[in-house]
Amino acid sequence: MTDDDIRLAERLADAAGAAIRPLFRAAFASEIKPDASPVTEADRAAEAAMRAIIAAERPGDGIIGEEYGVEREDARRIWVLDPIDGTRSFTAGRPIFGTLIALIEDDRPILGVIDQPIAGERWLGAGGRTTLNGRPCTTRKAEQLAGSLLATTSPHLFADDEIERFLTLGRACAPSGNLRQGPVYGGDCYNYGLVASGHLDIVVESGLKLYDFAALVPVVEGAGGRMTDWRGRPLGRSSGGDVIATGNPALIDPIMDILA
Amino acid sequence: MTDDDIRLAERLADAAGAAIRPLFRAAFASEIKPDASPVTEADRAAEAAMRAIIAAERPGDGIIGEEYGVEREDARRIWVLDPIDGTRSFTAGRPIFGTLIALIEDDRPILGVIDQPIAGERWLGAGGRTTLNGRPCTTRKAEQLAGSLLATTSPHLFADDEIERFLTLGRACAPSGNLRQGPVYGGDCYNYGLVASGHLDIVVESGLKLYDFAALVPVVEGAGGRMTDWRGRPLGRSSGGDVIATGNPALIDPIMDILA
Repeated sequence: MTDDDIRLAERLADAAGAAIRPLFRAAFASEIKPDASPVTEADRAAEAAMRAIIAAERPGDGIIGEEYGVEREDARRIWVLDPIDGTRSFTAGRPIFGTLIALIEDDRPILGVIDQPIAGERWLGAGGRTTLNGRPCTTRKAEQLAGSLLATTSPHLFADDEIERFLTLGRACAPSGNLRQGPVYGGDCYNYGLVASGHLDIVVESGLKLYDFAALVPVVEGAGGRMTDWRGRPLGRSSGGDVIATGNPALIDPIMDILA
Repeated sequence: MTDDDIRLAERLADAAGAAIRPLFRAAFASEIKPDASPVTEADRAAEAAMRAIIAAERPGDGIIGEEYGVEREDARRIWVLDPIDGTRSFTAGRPIFGTLIALIEDDRPILGVIDQPIAGERWLGAGGRTTLNGRPCTTRKAEQLAGSLLATTSPHLFADDEIERFLTLGRACAPSGNLRQGPVYGGDCYNYGLVASGHLDIVVESGLKLYDFAALVPVVEGAGGRMTDWRGRPLGRSSGGDVIATGNPALIDPIMDILA
């Protein structure tokens, strides 16, 4: 990975944001055909814009995108694109969805961008450091589960055999074990940016696709945190989609003790 | 209620925002004493600033505030203040908490403000109309539960006998009854602003206090929606804290059929 790769990733995020912004809160869903909702339109336009730039600038690199599939999947370097992570948040008009861009080399995510084009917030993780809008950011180091702020998008995204384990973790984190003070819900990729910036301690999710998590790893780890699957294994193309992100790497073990 | 009341409400929101903004994402929670977290500090500073203005401008009006309690509770006009609704969202660094300001006259909320001071978004409902940053806004009129976008802050805020009813509503709204496409979680007061602007269809919550819901009623109803308790009764000082907000007033009955 070079500085040119970082500049390219920033160009991709700029192009995606330009495609997405005009469609945010653009129409009432009830007026929309199912096959052409603003979110679908924004998803497609943003991914097409990013693919055009990669095709021009890195014709030999592979691409895995949410909307338009796989190109050159055997390439050593692969760009992984999720134009809108948090499509329901986008649809609901919440400015906490994000565009995800990752560069994977030899199956390791080495560069990641979480871009929120409405609020104008861009987390960029590469070369072992992470910035938010150009300023370095660092995770918070919660010393124990109790009192740690835990987030996930929705309890309904866990499998039946996972939800009880997640809620056990939720109770372990909540002051006095009360789930009312337990997990913070919603947020999608934005939660991982907040871990990188030291505002959230832990995010746990399941059922993610490669394009949902690849960009998050360099962002969280470049800020001093750690991301693995629920068994502590590094995340890559063959991962199952269950992920842990923690600001304090030392918490991976107690989290796994509950989830694995 | 007069135009002067509206101007005063805007001054209150301005003062609260000025107190809150410097404390948003200001510190790591791990460095903070429990009795002086940034959110507590922001909560208190914002409410104190609002109370000072009311004391100077409307010395005869009552005040009910989250942080500093009740003054002149028998007054005909009462200002109801929640300086930070969504304290956990604030703590997590999400720009979707809000300052809530309501004016209650003869037990009816007649003016409401939802102010998001980071994103710079202010919903104001008064005199039967609602604006977002000065521009009129209108709810979306979903024709049926199926396909309606339903939101609530957290499943753990419902009582034990309420959560199953909420999830039944969630299934009724989700395409093909799948909860994965069901409720959108998180959001606090911000969800009600999104109903007023036509991006969300329904919000259902329970356990709210007067200062959590009073401001929401004029915002949602001024935009053409409806807010009641789970039995369809208007919301006021004696309400129990269970609320329904719907962009299409005609959906109150099918929602109540499931919840009541």
